[in-house]
Amino acid sequence: MSNPASPPPQDLSFAYQLADKIIAAQTAPIPRGAIEVAKSCILDTVGVTLAAVEEPCVKILRETKGLADGAGEAPLLGTAERRSALDAALINGAASHALDFDDFTGVMGGHHSVAVLPAMFSALGGRMVTGKAFLQAYAVGVEVAIRMARGVNYHHYDKGWHPTTTLGIFGGVASVATLLGLTRDQIATALGIAASLSAGLKVNFGTMTKPLHVGHANRSALFACLAAEAGFTASAVAFEGKQGFFDVFNGPGTYDAAKILADWFEPWEIAHPDLGLKQFACCGSTHAAITMALKLRKAHAIDPATIAKIEILPHGRRLRHTNKPFPQTPLEAKFSVQYGVARALLDGVVPLAAFEGDAHLQPEIRSLLDRTDARPHPDMADDAAQQWGAEVIVTLTDGTVLGERIEQLVGRGGSYPMSETELWQKFEDCAKRALPREQIAPLFERLLTLESAKDMAQVLRLSLVSDLQKPQIRPDQVQFAAATGEDAPETTWVP
Amino acid sequence: MSNPASPPPQDLSFAYQLADKIIAAQTAPIPRGAIEVAKSCILDTVGVTLAAVEEPCVKILRETKGLADGAGEAPLLGTAERRSALDAALINGAASHALDFDDFTGVMGGHHSVAVLPAMFSALGGRMVTGKAFLQAYAVGVEVAIRMARGVNYHHYDKGWHPTTTLGIFGGVASVATLLGLTRDQIATALGIAASLSAGLKVNFGTMTKPLHVGHANRSALFACLAAEAGFTASAVAFEGKQGFFDVFNGPGTYDAAKILADWFEPWEIAHPDLGLKQFACCGSTHAAITMALKLRKAHAIDPATIAKIEILPHGRRLRHTNKPFPQTPLEAKFSVQYGVARALLDGVVPLAAFEGDAHLQPEIRSLLDRTDARPHPDMADDAAQQWGAEVIVTLTDGTVLGERIEQLVGRGGSYPMSETELWQKFEDCAKRALPREQIAPLFERLLTLESAKDMAQVLRLSLVSDLQKPQIRPDQVQFAAATGEDAPETTWVP
Repeated sequence: MSNPASPPPQDLSFAYQLADKIIAAQTAPIPRGAIEVAKSCILDTVGVTLAAVEEPCVKILRETKGLADGAGEAPLLGTAERRSALDAALINGAASHALDFDDFTGVMGGHHSVAVLPAMFSALGGRMVTGKAFLQAYAVGVEVAIRMARGVNYHHYDKGWHPTTTLGIFGGVASVATLLGLTRDQIATALGIAASLSAGLKVNFGTMTKPLHVGHANRSALFACLAAEAGFTASAVAFEGKQGFFDVFNGPGTYDAAKILADWFEPWEIAHPDLGLKQFACCGSTHAAITMALKLRKAHAIDPATIAKIEILPHGRRLRHTNKPFPQTPLEAKFSVQYGVARALLDGVVPLAAFEGDAHLQPEIRSLLDRTDARPHPDMADDAAQQWGAEVIVTLTDGTVLGERIEQLVGRGGSYPMSETELWQKFEDCAKRALPREQIAPLFERLLTLESAKDMAQVLRLSLVSDLQKPQIRPDQVQFAAATGEDAPETTWVP
Repeated sequence: MSNPASPPPQDLSFAYQLADKIIAAQTAPIPRGAIEVAKSCILDTVGVTLAAVEEPCVKILRETKGLADGAGEAPLLGTAERRSALDAALINGAASHALDFDDFTGVMGGHHSVAVLPAMFSALGGRMVTGKAFLQAYAVGVEVAIRMARGVNYHHYDKGWHPTTTLGIFGGVASVATLLGLTRDQIATALGIAASLSAGLKVNFGTMTKPLHVGHANRSALFACLAAEAGFTASAVAFEGKQGFFDVFNGPGTYDAAKILADWFEPWEIAHPDLGLKQFACCGSTHAAITMALKLRKAHAIDPATIAKIEILPHGRRLRHTNKPFPQTPLEAKFSVQYGVARALLDGVVPLAAFEGDAHLQPEIRSLLDRTDARPHPDMADDAAQQWGAEVIVTLTDGTVLGERIEQLVGRGGSYPMSETELWQKFEDCAKRALPREQIAPLFERLLTLESAKDMAQVLRLSLVSDLQKPQIRPDQVQFAAATGEDAPETTWVP
């Protein structure tokens, strides 16, 4: 049907128009602010990927036959292992989303960075790619993934597709195609192939198959580009054609392809305030309250021993599934707004280890939970425009009442980005799960100034473990310990 | 959500019920007749896979980065190459469907054998599997693939999904799970993973991406089993759950899960008359007329030089897209009922080479086409129950009028299976594209008596090219030549 070597009237098909947009984006200037966001997203994604290297779903994939025995040169982040480019994209992709701790965007109803970065890492191969070129290719892919969502959401999301992968795959194609320098015909073909490989059902949320979606989509995006580069063919009308992506995945009348192609770079999607990082490894509905608790502790240098009473007043919709006064398991702790706030007030940080082992049973925490009360905020209406706010009020033993309130905090981004210190705290907390301590700060520094890096492969090398090195800390060795400081660039969550 | 190590009430979920059916089918007796069909399907699939080894889409996949450089022990049929088990499933899978010459079933609206066999070949690994066990595992997978269709078709098909892969993937899981000896929990989990990897859009028909669907689905089915075996998790309600396979792929009210689970082995799907082999490498709508032409030539030992007139009367629906009196390209020749019938009367065989190079321009063929007339059969109503019939009438120069008619011929199967001679003719015509001549007959014989084979890996070895051997014939070397006989077990389509 389609022969990309001689594009017919299909020249004006959706895939070709999107290919044109991608090509234009490859050289479009990206404002400084957007570059900063892009860097923090990449940095954050590398961090959460490193944190997950020893997660069961990642370990299983590393050991699954067919993946385990496939030789190759593409590195698995946080390890000394290598695989074929495609298998590495799958395993790094699953790792990047294994903790569900990676950045996200509301428009997409999904996670934009993990949709493109693992495939991009594999696509580097022996290629010399500067940090600047890598950032541009990353921004192009994020643009495509989120733009696709603008055309098909939220019908697409509500129906049950997992947009991080069913739409993210096209972002992955755009980023990889940019790195590989694919032609217009090859990009359109790769998009057409990807339409037939798009997959992922929300019913598998809560199981290892959710992060697998991400790995699979990254593998498929890279594969689509490599096959198109090698001369493979796909329909030029794979999206809008009869029995094409739009009609089959969404259904007639439930999408608007024009919206996907309109208004590019106004602004770049990566700079949209709707993007956010997850500062804490727990349910997003608890983040506003935890953030207010951290703010209170820092502003007033609260000594936890002086706390008489903690009142938590989140938006009612946020409280329903996070109202767990005394969590009994690490998973329950992730869904307990009481626990998250108590942990923030006790230690001034809420690291990964707070949701592992017996951290939630620590006597000091239980004591604070005894003094905690959570109830829906009386001023935040159930049908309000903003539904992600919270207020935290702390009464001290001397009668002092301290409070902080925020109307909306879906994630840290837009007008309220994470500070460099906060980025480091999370990064270091994550990276130490896989990397020797001496590697962590150089990697962080390098990612923080990515636009000046000469060779991305060299940057990536900092995220690998050499055969001679051993990670300093593994999740099963992590023990819980009280923090000694709250703003130190190195947290003290080390045994 | 799902922890297959301790199945909860999900015990009665669709995936668990299907797993129970699969386990029961693994030891259920298969009638002799069904075994015969299964053997001819496997034999035929091996043949068409060998025929496609040098097809562009297969060559590209063999050379695509990431696949090309992945080392492994799983063989690519018809070559001396090996890959990882997963990559081999992908490449063998694409090859099996590259010519669209493989068996099919109407219920499924798809191809049952290529949905399971390439994954099964890769799953053999170092395992000792008897021919009998392999046949049983094959029948189990075909049962699942077609049973799935009984529950979701034709809504599923009409919507735009490619059932060979979107449903076939579950057949692949069933066959591979049988070979690997997965537990009930592991089978249910593999089915749940596969629900999230199911993919393939009909919009890509007519491009290389169509056979890629098949390779991708085989790879995914094998992967789902290996991951489940290694301890991966998926939702136990991946099919019927909220935002699960049935609702997302089909939609509420458009499927009947109970039909999938009912009436197993009554009869086995593999024995259903709806299954068919493709005897000729051209459009299925031309097959009834070609078959009648072959029958006439053989019964009356027609000398093509004595033909004064050829009349072709197919069912009207079959003629609309196959009415091409003088095809100008090999692809047009595949869609010309006139050409297929003339080729059958001229040579007594209609091999692959009839649709390659300049075969359609051969003077003897053009001369016959000059004397050919095709028109809709006046007695076959457009809305008749049977719409795949045809009549062929040949008038000889001495005034003799000879005719043959058939009411329905969708493919060769059910009550009108291909004879052993016909199976050999097709197999030899296919296999010689890849294998040295001396290997072809032993491989055919071995597949024809598969139930007595001690080790499937040994059988498969007969379909490989050793580094020292070279295929005797390649598509680009095939030249067209007139046949000298019509029933010889070796056709004469060799230069």
